[in-house]
Amino acid sequence: MDTRWLDADERAAWLRLVAVVELLPGVIDAQLRRDAGLSHFDYFVLAMLSEAPDRRLRMTALARRTNATLPRLSHVVQRLEVRDLVRRFPCPEDRRATNAELTAAGWDAVVAAAPGHVATVREHVLDPLSRTQLKQLSAIGDALLTRLDPDGTMRPLLDPAEPREA
Amino acid sequence: MDTRWLDADERAAWLRLVAVVELLPGVIDAQLRRDAGLSHFDYFVLAMLSEAPDRRLRMTALARRTNATLPRLSHVVQRLEVRDLVRRFPCPEDRRATNAELTAAGWDAVVAAAPGHVATVREHVLDPLSRTQLKQLSAIGDALLTRLDPDGTMRPLLDPAEPREA
Repeated sequence: MDTRWLDADERAAWLRLVAVVELLPGVIDAQLRRDAGLSHFDYFVLAMLSEAPDRRLRMTALARRTNATLPRLSHVVQRLEVRDLVRRFPCPEDRRATNAELTAAGWDAVVAAAPGHVATVREHVLDPLSRTQLKQLSAIGDALLTRLDPDGTMRPLLDPAEPREA
Repeated sequence: MDTRWLDADERAAWLRLVAVVELLPGVIDAQLRRDAGLSHFDYFVLAMLSEAPDRRLRMTALARRTNATLPRLSHVVQRLEVRDLVRRFPCPEDRRATNAELTAAGWDAVVAAAPGHVATVREHVLDPLSRTQLKQLSAIGDALLTRLDPDGTMRPLLDPAEPREA
């Protein structure tokens, strides 16, 4: 194989992306765990439900939207169910499918956690970027996701104006 | 607390970054595990050593450079030592410190793994970006790292031209 090694520009961009990918999850996770007792993934699951019609999604749709395998999601939702933040029930239209629904306590947990989470996102990601850089980052993210998510399973999340299946 | 919620541009940029941070590690890790029997973190440790003078670094310096805690790094280096890819020995200048050094087999492993890894990085990250976007991504990465890595522990890695401590 004739390898084209990274040139200086490519190496700079790649190493910075690796560093961000390495450091960002810990920062976001630590704040949510400390202030809300939720992992970032827990919060993401609750937030996705909070934005869905009737605060309810099929488990398969929720798995795609959170980029989780169904077993991983089931495990997390089970924990959230024990804490009375989510409940599961058979889908009325398709008894083989399962719906997950945010409880009143789950809604309260999202509402309580959101301000601190948003403040952390502002401090560590949005504030250091200019408005121009924000738009560049969106375009760069779209370009990368054509390769990282070729089937577009995360599109409904990224473009919330599009209709979503329940 | 008076929360400033994300506007459309901010939400678009943040959700795309979250998706990239969620998906990228799995893609990079899967290729290296499949083709080289190494996790991305294993590879990163070996690659950092391969670029150091005498292919050798103090464990504390290697931990900073890979953004790992010393216990996590020690665990990984122990596994790499069992596979004869790395060896550890007391630092001659400071007997309380430990050096990690790439073995000949470790060097061969990096050399063998690098082309496939670089090809994966090109396919999923570099190829979809224009040269302009590469430079934008570097500047965005630098801006984010002022917040995510305020002490600049990852700077030596990002600017390999700077002198490095052994």
